[in-house]
Amino acid sequence: MRSIVHDNDTKHGRIFDIAVQVFVLISVASFTIETLPNLPEKYQEILNDIETALIIIFTFEYLLRVWVAEKPLKYIFSFYGLIDLMAILPFYLSTSVDLRALRSLRFLILFRIMKLIKFTKAMNRFSKALKLAKEEIIIFLTATVIILYLSSVGIYYFENAAQPEQFASIIHSLWWSVATLTTVGYGDIYPITLGGKFFTFVILMIGLGIVGIPAGLIASALSAVRREEESKAKSE
Amino acid sequence: MRSIVHDNDTKHGRIFDIAVQVFVLISVASFTIETLPNLPEKYQEILNDIETALIIIFTFEYLLRVWVAEKPLKYIFSFYGLIDLMAILPFYLSTSVDLRALRSLRFLILFRIMKLIKFTKAMNRFSKALKLAKEEIIIFLTATVIILYLSSVGIYYFENAAQPEQFASIIHSLWWSVATLTTVGYGDIYPITLGGKFFTFVILMIGLGIVGIPAGLIASALSAVRREEESKAKSE
Amino acid sequence: MRSIVHDNDTKHGRIFDIAVQVFVLISVASFTIETLPNLPEKYQEILNDIETALIIIFTFEYLLRVWVAEKPLKYIFSFYGLIDLMAILPFYLSTSVDLRALRSLRFLILFRIMKLIKFTKAMNRFSKALKLAKEEIIIFLTATVIILYLSSVGIYYFENAAQPEQFASIIHSLWWSVATLTTVGYGDIYPITLGGKFFTFVILMIGLGIVGIPAGLIASALSAVRREEESKAKSE
Amino acid sequence: MRSIVHDNDTKHGRIFDIAVQVFVLISVASFTIETLPNLPEKYQEILNDIETALIIIFTFEYLLRVWVAEKPLKYIFSFYGLIDLMAILPFYLSTSVDLRALRSLRFLILFRIMKLIKFTKAMNRFSKALKLAKEEIIIFLTATVIILYLSSVGIYYFENAAQPEQFASIIHSLWWSVATLTTVGYGDIYPITLGGKFFTFVILMIGLGIVGIPAGLIASALSAVRREEESKAKSE
Repeated sequence: MRSIVHDNDTKHGRIFDIAVQVFVLISVASFTIETLPNLPEKYQEILNDIETALIIIFTFEYLLRVWVAEKPLKYIFSFYGLIDLMAILPFYLSTSVDLRALRSLRFLILFRIMKLIKFTKAMNRFSKALKLAKEEIIIFLTATVIILYLSSVGIYYFENAAQPEQFASIIHSLWWSVATLTTVGYGDIYPITLGGKFFTFVILMIGLGIVGIPAGLIASALSAVRREEESKAKSE
Repeated sequence: MRSIVHDNDTKHGRIFDIAVQVFVLISVASFTIETLPNLPEKYQEILNDIETALIIIFTFEYLLRVWVAEKPLKYIFSFYGLIDLMAILPFYLSTSVDLRALRSLRFLILFRIMKLIKFTKAMNRFSKALKLAKEEIIIFLTATVIILYLSSVGIYYFENAAQPEQFASIIHSLWWSVATLTTVGYGDIYPITLGGKFFTFVILMIGLGIVGIPAGLIASALSAVRREEESKAKSE
Repeated sequence: MRSIVHDNDTKHGRIFDIAVQVFVLISVASFTIETLPNLPEKYQEILNDIETALIIIFTFEYLLRVWVAEKPLKYIFSFYGLIDLMAILPFYLSTSVDLRALRSLRFLILFRIMKLIKFTKAMNRFSKALKLAKEEIIIFLTATVIILYLSSVGIYYFENAAQPEQFASIIHSLWWSVATLTTVGYGDIYPITLGGKFFTFVILMIGLGIVGIPAGLIASALSAVRREEESKAKSE
Repeated sequence: MRSIVHDNDTKHGRIFDIAVQVFVLISVASFTIETLPNLPEKYQEILNDIETALIIIFTFEYLLRVWVAEKPLKYIFSFYGLIDLMAILPFYLSTSVDLRALRSLRFLILFRIMKLIKFTKAMNRFSKALKLAKEEIIIFLTATVIILYLSSVGIYYFENAAQPEQFASIIHSLWWSVATLTTVGYGDIYPITLGGKFFTFVILMIGLGIVGIPAGLIASALSAVRREEESKAKSE
């Protein structure tokens, strides 16, 4: 029994894991479809039934994991134990407490998606890479926040007079900074003065060389981790 | 005969290959021009004639390849054998079956484009690189799908009340997630609430560091493959 | 006393540093909120009081640093000494000189943000990486400027006749080049002629391979600096 | 004399080089300003005078280079010799031939910009890196063209019925492919059907991993060239 729930090397363990993943995906799909406007009541009811069935299954899974664990308390207060609990708790709370609170609590259903990640072994490598490049990533996120702020101050001074509605304050201008320096460029807000356009050019030249770096850092850290693992595997 | 069709080291083999590639390009060009609206019937007829001529050429090429192959059956059921067949089959089917089906079957003409790829030796290096970074690419594609979903759930909660038309459901919001996290940013859908804008900022900071990684992984894997090949060439 | 102000290894030194950083953040926040339009006078007054309090604190900090420094003159004319001075100077100037000049001088408040950067040790690594890749970065920034100019000349010739308002001159077209080659693409200006669209395609194929490189260069230089530091740490 | 024109190591050589570069920049600036609409005739005349003066200077420089060269003919037919000639030729042609042709010939003035590049020694390193990654760059440019074509065929089938104006043919759809896969996303053309949006998602997932690679390849090749040069410098 224990081996089925814990391991994903044995045949039964794999089947158990895949079953849980399928149920999580069904749960996510049902949650997604439910937000569709003008959904016929008939479908709404079917989705509710699926939801109830899934809650029963996930509750059974949770109890099984507690029962099977060598140290039940350790599992309950572990990261994944709390996720498993938060995936089912809102349902039981919403039946006992006020119904209006139910809607917002349904948001917690998304914790079920974390169950998918839980099963991917390879996440380890990613977290190792993050640890390796941790310092640089923090620096560049800080630098990104600073450059976002400075560019919104700059554009505010250039564009505020020409577009008082769009660039109403530095806080409004921050939205422009985000959309521009990430190169999303929705087109809902952009400079029209010559000074603002030239400032955009300068800030993009500096900013792109900063915003784009974290991805490169993670990628190179990932390669380093893989190389390390390979050289370890060889020397063993 | 065999050497002409198979090899691209001999002079005749190269000429044969280039000829096939030119015919594929003509076929693609004719297919492209045919979609132009208000095309005079005169040009339409010329394109039809070109099409018929090309089908005859490709059929001849296919039969030649079957005839020349050491194990004809192995070629017929190989990846490239099937592509060669699918490049000509729709034409013969459309003359025997209902004419309405013809239009959609023309879509299969695109398989001819794969013939171009078939001849590029260097594709090997790319597929090696893909194999090397396969695991990471799968993880990051999964992570991309998950972050796309989570961000569309988030923006749905922030923007649904303010823009019930644009962010009508999580499925509608997914389109926003795709356009934003890939930084395409068409501008047909974007947040207008303060919460939605701040959420966009947070999700972009996390998301850009994930969506941008696969390209970096492939690039570094490609460099690794090249270095390996170079060191092999040296030691030989 | 000296150790508190100078070092950030001791307990008191850390507290001093964090306190200064918190005051800088408060100052930046107050400066940001002040730009909000239609801000009630009550809040305006509170912000002014905060501002005065912060100026007193920063003045005290500045004098302390001068007093504590082994060579006061060296500190005063050092990079950080000048920043510290410029963070408080505009306030004192604005009380003595004409009040209208006050608004623009407030801009200098942003120098306080540089105090945040001052404390991050890890900036060293970044400046090392910049020095390492300095030459290439200069070349690519030059190449970026040249390609921006050439593409704006090209698009001017293609689009000027069709859109005389948007692409009025090469200077107007430069804005298009910036928005396009950085892939921001606001959508306020884009080619509509077939020639202009094809030119955009060609210039993007060349340009993306140039504009995207500086970020990659910095990222790889950063990895090189980290590797170097690690190998140094090992050999010690 | 020869050393002044040829070398940029001596003091006089450097002054000569910088002077030429300044004249090129003046020429480019004058060319740019001239395209401004509604430029007063007074300025127009000044620009014409500057232009004439520059042509005289560049002609003198060209003749000097021919005179100074050890093998004049070799210089004249070298890459830079032809550029130097093309920078001045249009002016002399336009005075002898029809005046209408003058406007389009002015376009050749841009060859003067190449003089700037001529002086940057470091271009060598870039061309070395290009040679190193040449094969991969060609493959990925080919792959980019193929994916651009395939995605425009796909979106044509999805969107043609819903937006017959925008996605009128595969050729029209190509413009969408370019704007989308480069993530520029002007917003003048985008899918509105569910199928088209899903297709955009799939094509972006595949496409971003291909379009973004050439820049990464060049960056890593540049690092390789630098490392090689450094190890050479050490062993010498």
